[in-house]
Amino acid sequence: MRLSALSSPGAAATAVLALLSSADLVLARPSPEPKVPARMKWTNQRGKKVARTVLRNVLEGRTFTNSFAIAACSTSQANAISAPYDNVWVGLSDAEAVSVVAWLFGQESLNLTETEDAGEWDNTVILVELQIPNKTDVLAHIDGGAAAPERWAHVILDYRATEDPYYQDLLVGPLPLNSETVTIKPLEYPLTRKTEGKVRNLEANSETIYSEWLYKIGAEVADITQDLWGAQATGQDNDTIDIWGIDPYWQDDGRVVRWDMFWNLPQDYFDTETLLPLGLYFKSDVTGRDPSQWELQGWLYNNIFYETTEEFRTAYWNGSIEKLGANVEGDWGRTDPINANMPYDSSYPPVSIAPAGSRYGVDIERKYVEWMDFSFYVGFSRDVGMTIYDIKYKGERLLYELGLQEAMAHYAGGDPVQSGTTYLDTYYGFGPYAFELIPGYDCPEYATFLNSTFYVDETTHTHLNSICLFEFTSDYPIQRHSSGEYVTATKETHFSIRSVSTVGNYDYMFTYSFKLDGTISAEVRASGYIQSAYFTTGSDFGFKIQENLSGSMHDHVLNFKADFDILGTANSIQTMTNVPVSRVFPWSGGKARNTMQVVREFIDTEDQGRFNWAPNVAQQVLVVNKDEKNQWGELRGYHVLPMSGAMHLTVQNSSNLAEAGRWAEFDVQVTRQHDWEPRAAHPYNSQDVNDPPINFARFFDGESLDQEDIVLWLNLGMHHVPHTGDLPNTVFTTAHAGVQFMPSNYFDIDQSRRTVNAVRVNYENGTATDVETFGQKDQSCSVDFTPVEYDLWGYKGDVVVRKFPYDPNNPYYETDAIV
Amino acid sequence: MRLSALSSPGAAATAVLALLSSADLVLARPSPEPKVPARMKWTNQRGKKVARTVLRNVLEGRTFTNSFAIAACSTSQANAISAPYDNVWVGLSDAEAVSVVAWLFGQESLNLTETEDAGEWDNTVILVELQIPNKTDVLAHIDGGAAAPERWAHVILDYRATEDPYYQDLLVGPLPLNSETVTIKPLEYPLTRKTEGKVRNLEANSETIYSEWLYKIGAEVADITQDLWGAQATGQDNDTIDIWGIDPYWQDDGRVVRWDMFWNLPQDYFDTETLLPLGLYFKSDVTGRDPSQWELQGWLYNNIFYETTEEFRTAYWNGSIEKLGANVEGDWGRTDPINANMPYDSSYPPVSIAPAGSRYGVDIERKYVEWMDFSFYVGFSRDVGMTIYDIKYKGERLLYELGLQEAMAHYAGGDPVQSGTTYLDTYYGFGPYAFELIPGYDCPEYATFLNSTFYVDETTHTHLNSICLFEFTSDYPIQRHSSGEYVTATKETHFSIRSVSTVGNYDYMFTYSFKLDGTISAEVRASGYIQSAYFTTGSDFGFKIQENLSGSMHDHVLNFKADFDILGTANSIQTMTNVPVSRVFPWSGGKARNTMQVVREFIDTEDQGRFNWAPNVAQQVLVVNKDEKNQWGELRGYHVLPMSGAMHLTVQNSSNLAEAGRWAEFDVQVTRQHDWEPRAAHPYNSQDVNDPPINFARFFDGESLDQEDIVLWLNLGMHHVPHTGDLPNTVFTTAHAGVQFMPSNYFDIDQSRRTVNAVRVNYENGTATDVETFGQKDQSCSVDFTPVEYDLWGYKGDVVVRKFPYDPNNPYYETDAIV
Repeated sequence: MRLSALSSPGAAATAVLALLSSADLVLARPSPEPKVPARMKWTNQRGKKVARTVLRNVLEGRTFTNSFAIAACSTSQANAISAPYDNVWVGLSDAEAVSVVAWLFGQESLNLTETEDAGEWDNTVILVELQIPNKTDVLAHIDGGAAAPERWAHVILDYRATEDPYYQDLLVGPLPLNSETVTIKPLEYPLTRKTEGKVRNLEANSETIYSEWLYKIGAEVADITQDLWGAQATGQDNDTIDIWGIDPYWQDDGRVVRWDMFWNLPQDYFDTETLLPLGLYFKSDVTGRDPSQWELQGWLYNNIFYETTEEFRTAYWNGSIEKLGANVEGDWGRTDPINANMPYDSSYPPVSIAPAGSRYGVDIERKYVEWMDFSFYVGFSRDVGMTIYDIKYKGERLLYELGLQEAMAHYAGGDPVQSGTTYLDTYYGFGPYAFELIPGYDCPEYATFLNSTFYVDETTHTHLNSICLFEFTSDYPIQRHSSGEYVTATKETHFSIRSVSTVGNYDYMFTYSFKLDGTISAEVRASGYIQSAYFTTGSDFGFKIQENLSGSMHDHVLNFKADFDILGTANSIQTMTNVPVSRVFPWSGGKARNTMQVVREFIDTEDQGRFNWAPNVAQQVLVVNKDEKNQWGELRGYHVLPMSGAMHLTVQNSSNLAEAGRWAEFDVQVTRQHDWEPRAAHPYNSQDVNDPPINFARFFDGESLDQEDIVLWLNLGMHHVPHTGDLPNTVFTTAHAGVQFMPSNYFDIDQSRRTVNAVRVNYENGTATDVETFGQKDQSCSVDFTPVEYDLWGYKGDVVVRKFPYDPNNPYYETDAIV
Repeated sequence: MRLSALSSPGAAATAVLALLSSADLVLARPSPEPKVPARMKWTNQRGKKVARTVLRNVLEGRTFTNSFAIAACSTSQANAISAPYDNVWVGLSDAEAVSVVAWLFGQESLNLTETEDAGEWDNTVILVELQIPNKTDVLAHIDGGAAAPERWAHVILDYRATEDPYYQDLLVGPLPLNSETVTIKPLEYPLTRKTEGKVRNLEANSETIYSEWLYKIGAEVADITQDLWGAQATGQDNDTIDIWGIDPYWQDDGRVVRWDMFWNLPQDYFDTETLLPLGLYFKSDVTGRDPSQWELQGWLYNNIFYETTEEFRTAYWNGSIEKLGANVEGDWGRTDPINANMPYDSSYPPVSIAPAGSRYGVDIERKYVEWMDFSFYVGFSRDVGMTIYDIKYKGERLLYELGLQEAMAHYAGGDPVQSGTTYLDTYYGFGPYAFELIPGYDCPEYATFLNSTFYVDETTHTHLNSICLFEFTSDYPIQRHSSGEYVTATKETHFSIRSVSTVGNYDYMFTYSFKLDGTISAEVRASGYIQSAYFTTGSDFGFKIQENLSGSMHDHVLNFKADFDILGTANSIQTMTNVPVSRVFPWSGGKARNTMQVVREFIDTEDQGRFNWAPNVAQQVLVVNKDEKNQWGELRGYHVLPMSGAMHLTVQNSSNLAEAGRWAEFDVQVTRQHDWEPRAAHPYNSQDVNDPPINFARFFDGESLDQEDIVLWLNLGMHHVPHTGDLPNTVFTTAHAGVQFMPSNYFDIDQSRRTVNAVRVNYENGTATDVETFGQKDQSCSVDFTPVEYDLWGYKGDVVVRKFPYDPNNPYYETDAIV
């Protein structure tokens, strides 16, 4: 199908280019076609564009400094500061995004159709966002004084007008577009697979697979589903059960095979569907685009495999099958309080306030932050959501980049759907699902909230208040010492930036924190709904957690990129291991003593660059600069220190993943930085697991790690065997993983000595003789305390602006979730 | 020397017995003679009893609910409740302690001398405290309705009026003492060594070793110390250097050998001495009590060993020795702020308040606490400080006992003092050094503070405000989930009890927390001063951190006892391990799939009862009750889940420890509970490391762990290789270890669903359609905020009451630290 929205697309594109200024700052993001209904409900919500409330004011304000609850003694607005240079990672301006989309639709050879009008055999634009500039070019600019890197749009087109549909990564630019110089070219250099940025699209039949296949099968066995559950899945509005299955598909021998199963639908808005499996599974070979060539290859019920529908039906109706119960929604699956009668519980619990207002600076426009002696920039992208760039302490860069790369949820089970499920979540994207946060719950109510924006289907969606920045004082000090004469302590006040992405059933909370001693931490917590299994899959894969339900065991593995630059880009990786030794000393009278020592080694090349944390927490991993010794001759560096949940994937050579998730195989992986290896994974790795766009293992080709620009790829996660405590939701408290980067001989002394938020009390004979507060201000004041909950009526969700046809004056509210 | 204070001791004891009622509740604690000056300064402070301010009011109030800073909207006083039964672990009453001491002094056969008057050849009383009753007897009482267990005093006598001095653990009772029935008997049953509770005392010469040995050697080499450092250590008041050394002593072949070294003294009250080693060491054989038989066996300087003082002196003065610099105190070793000029830093940071006051109940008298559905009792003892007993959730016991057993700091180094140092800190005791806490720093200012008391030298010392109880709300929720239609979250409000013990240079913060999902955690953090090494010991044992200073590598290993009772005392230990498998399924077409599964096993006997956490966090350790399945057939239990720092000692068969620290050898150790195995270590294990009073390894004798009363002994700690960031103090943020006990199929669903401190916001088209707050009270009010620092003039330190001669009307303030 040809482009229909504009009769003269080339002319329109030119007009748009001429029209737009470089006004609004937005990020432009794609969202690929979701592949399973449990993760695709948002496509059905597309019809909801009812209330196109005019939201210009909301969008132009862009930052929603909260007006919630506890009024602080002074304002809690972040202090306005000016970034030292423009944020080169923050995404396309509205003008840039609009110009690129218009230009694309102007290229007849691309044969594009607007998403809203597109069918499965139309080509569409599914991503227009900033191509993150190469580190080499950025450093030349911010350190070397060179001009800012050229800006290019990263475009992904979905070529479906073909028997062999594919996605293609493309670059369009340079920006701003100029009709004389504008170029489009394959974006291949960041990929390990060299096929001009192309990878096949296994989801091109996303509508047909339901209308012509799954629902027809659902109808074919409606007699059985009615008998079992009084329900059917035929694609009708009154369906009360659902069909979806594995991700990624089986991709052996050139075939594309899927296993699907029936699920009960929840009876209300609670997202309980992943708790409601029904235990009937079927297998389909859906290779190619012609449904007439697709093949039903069998049924599974109660661990018995039937090769045909007829065989299954015969067995079912002749009574040789034991009929098993359904999982049905109940209060056990809803998140509202149950039996809430604990003493004092309805009284307001302790809460953190910021009596002196914000003690940090933010350049809202450039997403640049300063807290105490730290500074950093914030980026946001469709694939991974929030990323932190150019983290400095006292003006000296520590990390160039710190952020999520990919999140895997690798299930296992006795049934083919659980066994076959290994979500690679950047396929869905962390950006599109980084929803509005709840002040007082997701972050302290006094936090500064920023918006974030992504591109989807010729629109930009803005998540209001989706990134929060706040200081917090822990319930323990960072330092203390006492004696019979004095006691001293220093407050543990830290600064955090946070976002939460709900990728379907699971809510991932990402927090990067900065501590007074110079430590930086990266943490992830998981809450939300588990994906569960029908109980017949057996005890080898989980606990039985309801009458017909098993917690489905799974590994969460989340890869984080930490591109350290310790006093320049020439860095090395040193390990320091505590080992038991039996050793003779000059003073030990010739006798060997059983004691211990440290053993220092360097990771010389990438051949030794993949390893696990040592048993007994015995090994320090240090990022050092061999050319930068401190005054005592020790290497200045940072110590990479697991907090909890530093782990790797249990499964070896996963049948689900093949080459698509090699990044999950070790705890710690170190490579030499290259502009052509910017990310550990590609969102379409699931589309061709045997030859994915980015095969992380190929990064390891024996290169030197000796005083090179070094990147650490660190895995965090949880081996999760859900138990009844995961119902209705997993709790963030124990589903937590984190890593800290702690100065190691980097500074002369502990940097927390640089705060005055400390006290020393000298005392003698029951009397304090000195209370030293080091110049802290005595800011007595009054706080009007009002519970934050009563201001949550301001919650709004996402704001959408159409980019093609460009319609900046008619933003509307719409929030699209996967579930 | 004979008892001199009472002319007719027997009569006096009877009189005291008659006089006293069972009035004041105090714990009675001992403190053994400290062995090295760095840890014994408090003995010298004994002369400070100057201001015997009458403190009856202070002591009778006993609990100091804070009047600090931020006035809450309502009172923050803990709600007064009444414990279901008396606290049987809380220690002796004043009357009991006084009666026992008086009775002991009445026994001529014991030949006791009051500590203040005692010399090295006098017998003294060094402990009078409650013998913690046996679990068997307590359960019969609190569960079975039997009478409360008999109360006995645990007494330790220090028999020094002999060539072979020894300590003896004794029982005196039953209490209240009755002259007809009073009995004294060896306390042997909790010890693995069966020598009537006796263990030799290697510290009996604690004064002579200085006056007749160390200071004389100091004087003998004063020419050299003057030349090197312009100082001498001769025992004079104007000494500016100090001498002390290893702990425990070398105890091979029946000899007692010590290595000592010279240290610089700080020039002010900051505790920097452990940062000021001077690098000159000497070895002494000090076997026996006769100084004339002691032998100087050599000197070490700059890694060269000299067999005699003459040899060393000759080398020194003939110029063949390189003279090395001293470590001298400077700002780098003081904890006050340095270069404190960070932006906004002097403004008050965020702070937690309790706007609705305390939401928990405390029975102050019985040290019993209720928070939400949890309840527990608090004990406090000389050896280990705070212990938690009878932890219940909704009236069902989860743990009978949870508390510290021992803390080891095992150093290693190229010099004999660092190499020879392995502190076993209960020798010094955690009770005596659990000092007054700082509101707003050590705990939130709205916390409830309790006192604690220990016995020393015929006095009881009361630490004011030394245990804090508080609720705290984290900066993240315990649960959240969002979709395009609604968002829900629940506050992560938890309850903690905390104390801090400063054992010499190091401050250990112990925190036990209770979470809304039923999880309990035990955490320890370390701050304070490191013990460091002179830099010539080389890079195998640490980093160089100042011109003449090396961080001395050491392992902190802290053992915690967790006596679980899951639905009764018949429990089992199940492990559940995630393992990779290649497995064929009925539906996999005969092909094996690479996936994973769980493997469940039981630890059948104590022979398999000592093990480490599995690599890759792959193994769950579950405490379950095989006879208590939930409605789905799964075993109800708790999951023991490391947070961070779950580890064991690096050193194998430590030359320092021999048999004295076997508890540190594995991460997890499981035994069958016995009344005769109540503690993993004995405070005098250091006195005979080859045959210590409690050799933990002997607990493992192959007994069944199948549905028995089971105890877990869990090690937490840090492998610490100090770097410049440890100067002046180690920071609590990264020096952190913890373990959590999380429900595993114990409840039907997540218990955090039982709180109303949650919110659900439904929204559509940019408008919140529902904000559900579940009955939380809207308690708007005004908070007068005043920084807490300006009320810290109330800091007092410890209160002392003399017990023999009993002098209850003249309490005085005195705080004794080790350093």
